[in-house]
Amino acid sequence: MHEITGQHLIAGQWRSLVGATFKATAPQTGALLEPGFAESGAGEVDAALEAAREAFEKTLDLPPRWPADLLDRIADRIMDLGDALLARAESETALPRGRLTMERGRACGQLKMFAQIARDASWVDAVIECADPKRAPLPKPDLRRMLRPRGPVVVFGASNFPLAFGAVGGDTASALAAGNPVVVKGHPSHPGTTELLASAVLSALQALSLPPGTFAALQGKTHELSNTLVKHPLTTAVGFTGSQQVGRALFDIAARRPSPIPVYAEMGSLNPIVIFSEALVEGPDAIAKGLATSLMLGSGQFCTKPGVILIVGGDDEMAGSFVDSLAKHVAASGTLTMLNPGLRDNFTKRISNFSTLPGVKMVLAGNPSSAAMTQPVLLETTAQVFCQQRALQEEAFGPGALLVRCRDAEDAIRCLDTVAGSLTGTIHRGVLDDDAEVRRIARKLESIAGRVVVNGYPTGVEVNSAIVHGGPYPATTDPGTTSVGSAAIRRFARLIAYQDAPDNLLPPALQDSNPLHIERVVDGRRTRDGVHRNANHH
Amino acid sequence: MHEITGQHLIAGQWRSLVGATFKATAPQTGALLEPGFAESGAGEVDAALEAAREAFEKTLDLPPRWPADLLDRIADRIMDLGDALLARAESETALPRGRLTMERGRACGQLKMFAQIARDASWVDAVIECADPKRAPLPKPDLRRMLRPRGPVVVFGASNFPLAFGAVGGDTASALAAGNPVVVKGHPSHPGTTELLASAVLSALQALSLPPGTFAALQGKTHELSNTLVKHPLTTAVGFTGSQQVGRALFDIAARRPSPIPVYAEMGSLNPIVIFSEALVEGPDAIAKGLATSLMLGSGQFCTKPGVILIVGGDDEMAGSFVDSLAKHVAASGTLTMLNPGLRDNFTKRISNFSTLPGVKMVLAGNPSSAAMTQPVLLETTAQVFCQQRALQEEAFGPGALLVRCRDAEDAIRCLDTVAGSLTGTIHRGVLDDDAEVRRIARKLESIAGRVVVNGYPTGVEVNSAIVHGGPYPATTDPGTTSVGSAAIRRFARLIAYQDAPDNLLPPALQDSNPLHIERVVDGRRTRDGVHRNANHH
Repeated sequence: MHEITGQHLIAGQWRSLVGATFKATAPQTGALLEPGFAESGAGEVDAALEAAREAFEKTLDLPPRWPADLLDRIADRIMDLGDALLARAESETALPRGRLTMERGRACGQLKMFAQIARDASWVDAVIECADPKRAPLPKPDLRRMLRPRGPVVVFGASNFPLAFGAVGGDTASALAAGNPVVVKGHPSHPGTTELLASAVLSALQALSLPPGTFAALQGKTHELSNTLVKHPLTTAVGFTGSQQVGRALFDIAARRPSPIPVYAEMGSLNPIVIFSEALVEGPDAIAKGLATSLMLGSGQFCTKPGVILIVGGDDEMAGSFVDSLAKHVAASGTLTMLNPGLRDNFTKRISNFSTLPGVKMVLAGNPSSAAMTQPVLLETTAQVFCQQRALQEEAFGPGALLVRCRDAEDAIRCLDTVAGSLTGTIHRGVLDDDAEVRRIARKLESIAGRVVVNGYPTGVEVNSAIVHGGPYPATTDPGTTSVGSAAIRRFARLIAYQDAPDNLLPPALQDSNPLHIERVVDGRRTRDGVHRNANHH
Repeated sequence: MHEITGQHLIAGQWRSLVGATFKATAPQTGALLEPGFAESGAGEVDAALEAAREAFEKTLDLPPRWPADLLDRIADRIMDLGDALLARAESETALPRGRLTMERGRACGQLKMFAQIARDASWVDAVIECADPKRAPLPKPDLRRMLRPRGPVVVFGASNFPLAFGAVGGDTASALAAGNPVVVKGHPSHPGTTELLASAVLSALQALSLPPGTFAALQGKTHELSNTLVKHPLTTAVGFTGSQQVGRALFDIAARRPSPIPVYAEMGSLNPIVIFSEALVEGPDAIAKGLATSLMLGSGQFCTKPGVILIVGGDDEMAGSFVDSLAKHVAASGTLTMLNPGLRDNFTKRISNFSTLPGVKMVLAGNPSSAAMTQPVLLETTAQVFCQQRALQEEAFGPGALLVRCRDAEDAIRCLDTVAGSLTGTIHRGVLDDDAEVRRIARKLESIAGRVVVNGYPTGVEVNSAIVHGGPYPATTDPGTTSVGSAAIRRFARLIAYQDAPDNLLPPALQDSNPLHIERVVDGRRTRDGVHRNANHH
């Protein structure tokens, strides 16, 4: 079992230069947790990225399936950490043990999914166009293209999913799966959890004799550390999950580099839900209960938490009874603990700002208590007020939601027009006579969100090949990608082609005999067969 | 036949607000060409993008194969323009008629290739994971994801390929193929060519009764126009081919938007060629001749022109005789006309800067003459000087190249270490006893270039599914993509998923019966079959 050192993992060593330290805080009590953790400075960043570069050069020459073994092994070693990992995560995040156990399952499942993708290796999307020396007016060359790893990737661990989006979460798993070394910056709310996870990766690297620079974990609280990581010339891409403010700041730094790099930032969103009164007629209490559960998951700190609920049509009595029922289920959560006092303070501030706006009614007034603790909040307003008050169109990260009464679908469309890019959009439709209205709402949701959910709830993101956890800005910085699911691997790869290269200069994925037995497209046909070259061409 | 109006094409109308005009210049003589062209201002940009938005909303509801018919029709209408198009392009660009005829073939071939991709419609990369209501602990939802168009795309026409990278070149074709409306800014060197091409698109849109806002062409010379187009809130993505200076400026503007958008800029590069002396032994004159042809294509104004030629090993006599042979073939080009006097002046300035550096020898001193005319240039230096002088590591866009004598592969690696991201990297290898050196150079080239060419020349880019016309910055702003070939379509699409949506809310590509008969991945299996839902789930 790894004893927490309070140091960084750099090139396979636990180390730190002399410098400041910080401690994690217990979210319920505000008490400081031992030990102190070293603050990483520019020296550590340099060392980690130089080691990553060196590792990258070595791993490029390994048999291409090495990430599969590594990811499988990491998952096993995370399980080997046992209760120590769950206990430390619980003390640092105040997330319940049951939830953390589930999240660990999800994190390990994710690692094993990417291991499988790396093992099959078809994700490189190899395409071969064979030569045609007889083509006129010019002979056709032999062209072969594939996806290749980019190089060192910097990953920022998220606060709200210390295991599934943390130091060894989806960004790290997908970047490693593509064959990149990863330098993680752990979230300062849970440095002990980060170190334990890093120790699992180190142990996996050692067991497989892989270059130690393949993974590093740096700790620190300063913006300077984040900026230095993104600015470093050896960094080729960045994965981030967190607030819009920080995500945008990192994106801006990356865009201003002499040589810009992508920042794949997932920054949360409003996740609007549109509930047609027809759905309420069918089962108001079931929806209220399902919605309350979705709202309160992780104390309202899910990226996909539905922040605004549009109730379309119906009379005051129907809507009122739904709101009462929702409030009852939400209030049953009692006092909740958020991830850290800073998030709690931001939530309290935003809610108190909402509640002072004319036309906004407090349905459930949650009060903050000590440290990171607070109570759930529900507010209610009309479509007209929502459209006018820009403040209401922004995310309140925490256990709260805004109900918006819309007279009709037209009203709802007007509201959705003011909603910025979102990870998800949800419809509860019931059985409607005229589906044109629902189709219009669905189309509108598609235009602002990466995932459209029907008759369900946006929280509880599946990890598979059909998921999209993405969406237009500010939900993410790149709506062409997803940060969850198998397609996430493409973010950390670049396209390269070889023209008329003999087999011994080609990466295995492009060689004639298809030694990796991957799926390739050869002259327009998808196949795992080898390629026969025209012998006259060379 | 379309009579050139000097106006913009906006929402199906030739129009312009009152304002300044400009004229194209004949590159050989500097004479102004009639007619004058209106300078687009913010009003035209607004009108074009509003019309594009409106068109986008309408075309999203059309049967999804409309871009196939449009692209085919555009290619036909371009051919219908006949000699008038070639004559106007010739007068505006000074490119020879034969070359323009070939380029037109390439442009139309490209349109038809994207038409085929849009017709098959499998490019949307549909992935379906069916529901499993019995999964524990939570039921598995039905999830379906696909690529969807982004919305209005702005395309900047390139100067050097008025047909294949111009108003209706690869960027426009791929953006339309994905289902996006396109607003083109024509290159100010060839506004008449732009207008003729736009007239072909208009005629195709009219013939198919497609929304006129699907395509717009604006003319103008000002940076303000470019900036306004990139800043416009309705613009969702940008395609650009041109100089690093302009490409980076547009990238910066896009990154600073309140809601950033991608700028896919292809900005040319050094395109290093590494020639091992062993290759020279085998056939020095054949390589000199092939290289001279590659260098002088389009008067040296190809994005893939090999700008730096590393000669590795061999004695002075062998290298000297190769350089003489290359100089003889290059000099045979005589006086050349560049695309416009501005490009010619930049080329002259850069070469004269190179030639003043200590250790740089002028092999062939080309002199500028009137208007955009000049003569080809060859310079020679050593690996040591090349590595020391940063100026030599920058592209000189025009008919010139720098020869660099390297003692060995080590020397060549040091040179390549100083070369920034490039579209291509080339090796002439000959028969070597020890292939490890060649493999090392190939690996190095792969790390800096999007395409590695063996025993060939980087100019003459194939348009097919295996090509990569891309590369690390500053060759492009996104090494994950290509601006030529079928994969270019992905740049202009975003990922979306539907969860538990009934058939009538799904885009056709995701519907149960697979009405488009496209290739999809269903529960991990690639198929064109339909999907059977578990009836109990809804």
